[in-house]
Amino acid sequence: MGRIVIFDTTLRDGAQMEGITLSLEDKHEIIARLDDLGVDFIEGGMPASNPTDRQLFSSPVTLNKSKMVAFGSTGKPGVPPEEDAGLNALKDACTEWVCIFGKAWDFHVTEVLRISREDNLRLIADSVSYLVRNGKKVVFDAEHYFDGYGSDRAYALSVVRTAREAGAEWITLCDTNGGSLPGEISEAVEDTLLEVGDCLGIHCHNDSDLAVACTLSAVDAGARMVQGTINGIGERCGNANICSVLPDLKLKMGLDIDADISKLTRVSHAVAEIANLTHNSFMPYVGSKSFTHKGGMHIDALLKNPSTYEHIPPEAVGNHRNILISEMSGKAGIIKKLDDMGIEPTEERVSLVLDRIKEMEGQGYQFEAADASLELLIRRITGIGKTPFAIPAFRIYIDEIGDSEIKSEASIKVVDANGNMEHTASDGDGPVDAINNAMKKALSKFFPEIDALRLIDYKVRVLDERAATAAPVRVMIRTTDGRSKWTTVGVSTNVIEASLIALVDSMKYAVTKDKWTE
Amino acid sequence: MGRIVIFDTTLRDGAQMEGITLSLEDKHEIIARLDDLGVDFIEGGMPASNPTDRQLFSSPVTLNKSKMVAFGSTGKPGVPPEEDAGLNALKDACTEWVCIFGKAWDFHVTEVLRISREDNLRLIADSVSYLVRNGKKVVFDAEHYFDGYGSDRAYALSVVRTAREAGAEWITLCDTNGGSLPGEISEAVEDTLLEVGDCLGIHCHNDSDLAVACTLSAVDAGARMVQGTINGIGERCGNANICSVLPDLKLKMGLDIDADISKLTRVSHAVAEIANLTHNSFMPYVGSKSFTHKGGMHIDALLKNPSTYEHIPPEAVGNHRNILISEMSGKAGIIKKLDDMGIEPTEERVSLVLDRIKEMEGQGYQFEAADASLELLIRRITGIGKTPFAIPAFRIYIDEIGDSEIKSEASIKVVDANGNMEHTASDGDGPVDAINNAMKKALSKFFPEIDALRLIDYKVRVLDERAATAAPVRVMIRTTDGRSKWTTVGVSTNVIEASLIALVDSMKYAVTKDKWTE
Repeated sequence: MGRIVIFDTTLRDGAQMEGITLSLEDKHEIIARLDDLGVDFIEGGMPASNPTDRQLFSSPVTLNKSKMVAFGSTGKPGVPPEEDAGLNALKDACTEWVCIFGKAWDFHVTEVLRISREDNLRLIADSVSYLVRNGKKVVFDAEHYFDGYGSDRAYALSVVRTAREAGAEWITLCDTNGGSLPGEISEAVEDTLLEVGDCLGIHCHNDSDLAVACTLSAVDAGARMVQGTINGIGERCGNANICSVLPDLKLKMGLDIDADISKLTRVSHAVAEIANLTHNSFMPYVGSKSFTHKGGMHIDALLKNPSTYEHIPPEAVGNHRNILISEMSGKAGIIKKLDDMGIEPTEERVSLVLDRIKEMEGQGYQFEAADASLELLIRRITGIGKTPFAIPAFRIYIDEIGDSEIKSEASIKVVDANGNMEHTASDGDGPVDAINNAMKKALSKFFPEIDALRLIDYKVRVLDERAATAAPVRVMIRTTDGRSKWTTVGVSTNVIEASLIALVDSMKYAVTKDKWTE
Repeated sequence: MGRIVIFDTTLRDGAQMEGITLSLEDKHEIIARLDDLGVDFIEGGMPASNPTDRQLFSSPVTLNKSKMVAFGSTGKPGVPPEEDAGLNALKDACTEWVCIFGKAWDFHVTEVLRISREDNLRLIADSVSYLVRNGKKVVFDAEHYFDGYGSDRAYALSVVRTAREAGAEWITLCDTNGGSLPGEISEAVEDTLLEVGDCLGIHCHNDSDLAVACTLSAVDAGARMVQGTINGIGERCGNANICSVLPDLKLKMGLDIDADISKLTRVSHAVAEIANLTHNSFMPYVGSKSFTHKGGMHIDALLKNPSTYEHIPPEAVGNHRNILISEMSGKAGIIKKLDDMGIEPTEERVSLVLDRIKEMEGQGYQFEAADASLELLIRRITGIGKTPFAIPAFRIYIDEIGDSEIKSEASIKVVDANGNMEHTASDGDGPVDAINNAMKKALSKFFPEIDALRLIDYKVRVLDERAATAAPVRVMIRTTDGRSKWTTVGVSTNVIEASLIALVDSMKYAVTKDKWTE
């Protein structure tokens, strides 16, 4: 089989996801990442639909590898192509390639578009040939193709044949509602291939949790172009996830693609950041947990041979292995962690660390995800590295009288390693925010880098529900300084104290992470 | 094809997910939901591995439909089954069914277990037959079956034949590393079926984004039991998602299953809440966005005919359509709720309630799980029932100086419906406990039943991670008076205020729930 062509529609169909708004700069940044990854086509948006996309297509984008595509639809029924605003926006777009969708489901033609089946074919032929006449290369997206194929096979085939005969280079078969099974997809693709020849693409949605499988199934049946989005973003349940499809095609099916999948994890994170979405840590291949292991037996086996519990080497997609420390994982995990930190794993150190971790896990601590707290703990226990500061006292007031706004205020004393003291106070949106503000205010005197810290997650878990509000709670805080991210943990019956412990660890880690060695 | 048997492993393999800790109470609550959904088997955990699971299996769980299963592994090499702690924990578990895993990949036998291939077969035979002799029905999970089948087909087949001949009722073929393609799965299942007969189950992981597809593919090839987890939780990238597999089997493949999939959306949300995980709104079938539509053209078509842009009716899985530009969505639910409460659902009441709920949801409230807060809200809005008490003022102090214990104290004023005031104060293990104690102390003067209240869960979720400690947080509190349980919710940027709102709602509900009518 020849090379599989990758058509990315993150910026067009992906951006249909509820809550996403991409500026022109956002789009340019994502385009640069996609070009670097090496996808064949980048569908950038709909020039007819909004000012951002109009601007995006008003001048050519310089790329190394990928080709930009402008998206639109067949013209309006009854309007000559020359006078159709949508088609003319495509004609004027500064791209060689355009993609238009048209209806392939008879039911949609008569019920939604409310024109005759013949008029729909004419519309498709006129729209495609107008664009071709004007020098464009055309991808034709056959909307609802598989529903149409199931409802009236002959009509669906006539739609794609019409588009092909009018000059479309590629015909994309779309499972618009995401309701098809892989077997249905492959059957329709095989049959359609006989009708229009080797020019088929596939575009799947994930409503049945099968978008990736349906995409692979279409390729198996002869489709040579795949459409999808980074991280599977898209309306409803999203589109086929490029971050899964690419490694499946290359590593599992052994097919040839041009994209460099060792860049996938980075691109996946970058797109999430730019689109202001939380990166799903459980995502196949590119998630932060995709190659995370816990449980003593698994880790034991992994250290003997990684392929015992890993389907691919994580580096193949630019990801990396994580071995979690927990009660169960024991000695081997601790030795590896000390090694990673550059601390010699002597027998005494390992057993000291192990004992302390067990004791703290008994109190409700969990270090699996709290990498930074674990490192600080190991440094404390092994006596390596100095404590950068201490907090000898703090006080918090919260009150509300009548209908007035609730008030939170924290006062705090901080002492640095040389004994210098700073005593300050701050308000906040709630007591944890007040204490965070007061700590940052006090610490920035000694450590200016503290100002750049941002808390990006704050989780609270009640550990013993039967103890009700007197139960110990575990707080996990995730922090970034813009370059890296780390997680810290605190446990106390007092949610404020647990938060404070995690906050203190986070700031201690921030000011020492680049500056300590054994 | 006969009925497909559903084997849920949310509480065992699902709980392997990083960051999940389930208490005994959590497990019992999830078991009740799964039983209500109607899965055939509920794998509850590993009685040999920790005190929670030991307790779970120390007495029989009364269920309507599902059967509990205790999980473990084959015995230790060289230890007679009678003396094997793990096998004896299974023997002693109060369940008819047990599930043990054994190695089916020759590479794992020699490299990880480090015993001979023959010894592994003997271990499997001895372990299964020991359990069967002791009156257990056994499910045998063939770990890494598909890797084993690819590496040494004959050996993999001999493993499952051995387990079957030793008396296992079901043989589950596990894609433990999640690396297989659907076509590889179906080929191996078909072949294995010829070897051991019609007793095959399938257990897939999602590392290639194909867990659901591989599960369906195994069923197509003749597997009759499917394993999976609610919301696809599990280690690394998770397990096959029951919430997708069930509707795919029933609605797409037309197969017979016992579970009532119209309860899926509710179960999916409940499990996420209990496990303290964010519910993924893009999840197929059960996500809050699975049937959310935006964009004029789609909505226009939808109003003409829902099947234009919906692959199934959302009600089939207990979900509902969301049309972003209209407020049609919630109406039916509100009418039903008012009806349930015995309040006449007049047009005016319904629209007042709907408006207020939307406004509060915009602030971060969520009433799906907070039944008691929703009822109180409806009573307030419709003006039905009196407010039993008010809290005109409170104040909280938290401080710590030097190495002294951290101190939390709350003072509070409570006024009952007749204007009687009680002003009191209390210490506590943390500020929320202090305020809970002070409220109970003050309120028990007016409402003696308050003394019997126990808080059985307290959850905190940060709503906007990017706003860090200044983010609004949502607190959910679950309370019992020994007879019934209810959940209340509070939202504020101040975790203490959010807790207070939920606490006040809980106590208001407690003292009015039996005493009000329209």
